[in-house]
Amino acid sequence: MDRLTIVKVGGKVVEDPESLNQLLDDFKTITGYKILVHGGGRAATDLATRLGVETKMVEGRRITNMETLEIVTMVYGGLINKRVVAGLQARNCNALGMTGADLDVVRARKRPVADVDYGYAGDVEHVNTRELRMLLDENVIPVVAPLTHDGMGQMLNTNADTIASRLAIELSHYYKVLLFFCFEKRGVLSDPLDDNSVIGELTEPQFLEYQESGIISSGMIPKLYNGFSAIHNGVSEVLITNPESFYKGRGTRLVKS
Amino acid sequence: MDRLTIVKVGGKVVEDPESLNQLLDDFKTITGYKILVHGGGRAATDLATRLGVETKMVEGRRITNMETLEIVTMVYGGLINKRVVAGLQARNCNALGMTGADLDVVRARKRPVADVDYGYAGDVEHVNTRELRMLLDENVIPVVAPLTHDGMGQMLNTNADTIASRLAIELSHYYKVLLFFCFEKRGVLSDPLDDNSVIGELTEPQFLEYQESGIISSGMIPKLYNGFSAIHNGVSEVLITNPESFYKGRGTRLVKS
Repeated sequence: MDRLTIVKVGGKVVEDPESLNQLLDDFKTITGYKILVHGGGRAATDLATRLGVETKMVEGRRITNMETLEIVTMVYGGLINKRVVAGLQARNCNALGMTGADLDVVRARKRPVADVDYGYAGDVEHVNTRELRMLLDENVIPVVAPLTHDGMGQMLNTNADTIASRLAIELSHYYKVLLFFCFEKRGVLSDPLDDNSVIGELTEPQFLEYQESGIISSGMIPKLYNGFSAIHNGVSEVLITNPESFYKGRGTRLVKS
Repeated sequence: MDRLTIVKVGGKVVEDPESLNQLLDDFKTITGYKILVHGGGRAATDLATRLGVETKMVEGRRITNMETLEIVTMVYGGLINKRVVAGLQARNCNALGMTGADLDVVRARKRPVADVDYGYAGDVEHVNTRELRMLLDENVIPVVAPLTHDGMGQMLNTNADTIASRLAIELSHYYKVLLFFCFEKRGVLSDPLDDNSVIGELTEPQFLEYQESGIISSGMIPKLYNGFSAIHNGVSEVLITNPESFYKGRGTRLVKS
C-alpha cells in the first residue's frame, strides 16, 4: 500500500507565524500522499471576545451556539485555513482548503443533548474516502478545517483531533497511514513542568494509569483517546510531537497493547 | 464542446436566506458543468463595523488594509462560502468551496499603488484551468469566493464579477460558456426607479451611451465592463439577471457589437 501521512496541527502552532513557517517547511519535505488537519481554538476565542460573545467550554469542548458557530466558521474555515493553504502554495504544495461540507468529506450529526447542550457541535458519522482518494490521486494536498456538516445544510463544529483520527482510520483501508499530532510540546510529558521528560512510547493501559495519577494534563486526554483509537483501528503509526521534531519521527509513539 | 454555466451571485442575494434558497434550488436544475462565484460585500462591512474597523470604498472597491483582509478572508472564504457549500450539499450537488489560493486556481498581483492605494487588492494574473477542468471532470461544482493569492503566501481581495468573467473567458477555450450575473434586480434597468424597465439586449456602444447619460447606476458599471469583456473574448452568452429569472434565461442579454 502507498503511504499517507496525516499531520494534525494545533491552534497555537498555526497562530504563531514562525512555528507555522517551520511546520510548513517540514511538511513540504514529507514524501508520499499527505493531508493536513488544523485546529484554531485561540483565534476563535479572541474574535468572540472582540465581538462581545461569551466563550463557554465544558471539558475542553466549546459550547457552540449560532453566533459561536458563525465565528468558528469564519476563523477555522476562512482565516486559518486560507493562511495554511496560501503558505503551502507558496512552497509549491498543491493545497486545497476544505471543511467536512466540501465534497461532503466529513458528515456529522449534531450532538444529542444529554447533561450538556453543546449546541452546533458535530459527532463524525461518515468519512467520504472516495472523494479524498480522488484528490490524493490528483496530487492534491487536502487542508482540513475542524468543521463538518449534517448533510441538511447545517455546518457543525467538530474537534480537529477527532477529525484527524477518523480520517486516518477510514483511509487506513487504502493506505499505510502515519498520523502525527503536532502541538507545542515535544511529546507527552511524564513531568508537565519539564519539557524534556518526553515519554518515548506509550500503551493505552500506561496512559490510563498516567491519567489516573494526574500526570497527563487534561488537554492531552482527548488527543490520546483519539490517538489510541487510531492505532487500534488500522493506523500504522501515531506520534505526538511538535513542529521541530515531527518529521524526524521524534516524540511520543503510541503503541498497540 | 460541453456546456459550462458560471453563475455569479451578488452579496445581497447570498445574505438573504430566502433568496439564497431560491437561487440554490434553481442552480441545482442547471444541467452540464457548473461553477458558482459569490460576492459578499455587506456582511464584511457589518463585521468590520462590529469590530470597529473603518470601511473605506473608492469607486465601489474596498480599500483593503491587513485588518480588512482578515475580515474578508473570514467572511467570504469562511462564513458565506460554507453557507453556500452546505446548502448545495443538502441538495445533492457536490460543491467544493474554494478561494483563488486553493489549488492555485486564481493567482493575482497586489494592485500597484497609483492615485489610490487599494492595499491587499489583487488584480487577476492567471487562471489555472487545468485544476478547474480536473474538478469539473470529477463532477465537482466549484464554489468560488472573491479572494485570490499572489503565489508567495499572501491572500488578496478580488472583485467577484472580475473573477467570474476571467474564469468564463479562460474556460471558454474548453467549454461553451454561459455566464450569468445574478443580483437583486431583474436586469439592467433603463429607469432605475422602475424595476420593470429591464433592457432586453445591450451592446457595448449602447452601454457607453447609457453610462454617459447617467441612466445606468454606478454599481452596475464594473459588472457590465466585466460582462462585455467576457462576451468579446469567447464567452457564448452573458446575462444580467436575478435569482427568480436566471434559469429561465430572462434578464439583460449582452450582445457583441
